Amino acid sequence: MMETILNHRSVRNYSDKPVPQDILDKILEAGTRASTTGNMQVYSMVVTRNRHIREKLWEAHFKQNMVLEAPVHITFCADFNRFNKWCRQRKADPGYDNFLSFFTAAIDALLVSQNVALAAEAHGLGICYLGTVTYMTDKIIDILGLPASVVPVAAMVTGYPAKETELTDRLPLNGVVHYEKYADYNENDIDTIYAGKENSELTARLLEENKKETLAQIFTDNRYPKKDNVFFSKQLLEVLKKQGFMNNGE
Amino acid sequence: MMETILNHRSVRNYSDKPVPQDILDKILEAGTRASTTGNMQVYSMVVTRNRHIREKLWEAHFKQNMVLEAPVHITFCADFNRFNKWCRQRKADPGYDNFLSFFTAAIDALLVSQNVALAAEAHGLGICYLGTVTYMTDKIIDILGLPASVVPVAAMVTGYPAKETELTDRLPLNGVVHYEKYADYNENDIDTIYAGKENSELTARLLEENKKETLAQIFTDNRYPKKDNVFFSKQLLEVLKKQGFMNNGE
Repeated sequence: MMETILNHRSVRNYSDKPVPQDILDKILEAGTRASTTGNMQVYSMVVTRNRHIREKLWEAHFKQNMVLEAPVHITFCADFNRFNKWCRQRKADPGYDNFLSFFTAAIDALLVSQNVALAAEAHGLGICYLGTVTYMTDKIIDILGLPASVVPVAAMVTGYPAKETELTDRLPLNGVVHYEKYADYNENDIDTIYAGKENSELTARLLEENKKETLAQIFTDNRYPKKDNVFFSKQLLEVLKKQGFMNNGE
Repeated sequence: MMETILNHRSVRNYSDKPVPQDILDKILEAGTRASTTGNMQVYSMVVTRNRHIREKLWEAHFKQNMVLEAPVHITFCADFNRFNKWCRQRKADPGYDNFLSFFTAAIDALLVSQNVALAAEAHGLGICYLGTVTYMTDKIIDILGLPASVVPVAAMVTGYPAKETELTDRLPLNGVVHYEKYADYNENDIDTIYAGKENSELTARLLEENKKETLAQIFTDNRYPKKDNVFFSKQLLEVLKKQGFMNNGE
């Protein structure tokens, strides 16, 4: 268990060896054992193997190679559609068209996704989460035919790795853990916490490639700039509204 | 690995046996191996053992017994505070005060939480997520002293179980998995998917206790009623604004 967790790396190169259905079933079943609010299971997993649909997903996910390479694509959705239908068929009036309900369902779906990731790795598969999912919810809704009350919140490719991948660095544990209460960071703390990352060979290479003075600037100017975040924030909030999750009684 | 995942149950009764720090460290370290957007690690874990603070958390979490019983309380936070400070100390201008950034950080924190849950269980501990966290973010922010750009998104108690707990039921796998695209549910699908749950002894007992005609009504009328969801939706959105995550360029 601990070995699987500690050995996780995001795999971005896949062989064309298919994933057997019985292994996939075990992995998906593992997903469903995650904690779920009130045992409501307000999520769905959409498993896509079809090449034609994966090509559309590849376009939505910024044309990242691994989306075409990996034989299996799983989209994890916050899903109140099934639960709402059940309520209506059982003389019950569902009140789950609001932001809290969306967030509850998103938590459910994300815990499922991490169980699936670890179960896949325990079976010798590689996985990579696609951070692009929250940028492109509208396109993914369209491609996968997601109805109202369903919003994709995580996406993952999986398959057998084509090559070994290095373990990535992490901040020191005491940089992300607080005891009793939150102890805010002073300048010296920040210097200490980020020193290892800043002094790595990877960072030296990135600074040279991107012609930047600091690693932080690569994040703020190139990778996650404000204008993109604002654009995608508006889009995501519009999608929540369109899918029926923003009736907050105002 | 699979055994740990498949044996998960939420533990609500704890012995007073303390959790050794070296085991806790391993569990928290396991958390940090989860995938994280752009390797930014935009989360924090706040570990609370202090009885006095746990009493305050117990009050915030609807006075659930297990919050007092379990020796360790972990609050998982979406956290851009550390990252923003780092950016500002490195001549970089962070643009992470928007909804997308909050949601990115929430995803990070939730994947961490599930690794921590499984690592705890692999070490013989029990865990229980506290769904009340998203209702009470404002109180928890106050108790734990969370600064701007930090929002709690998951909370968990952990410790050694005081007694055996039964595995809870789940919907059949094909009720939550879709292949290729989303296949929407018809009436018959809904009947089939929920049949096992509806015909269980637990449901019979709940219907009797709650004097309700259907299980769905227990959810809509008693456990998660619309008026509560709307109230907590507003509150959560206000907290996101207050913590500086709703500057979406409007």
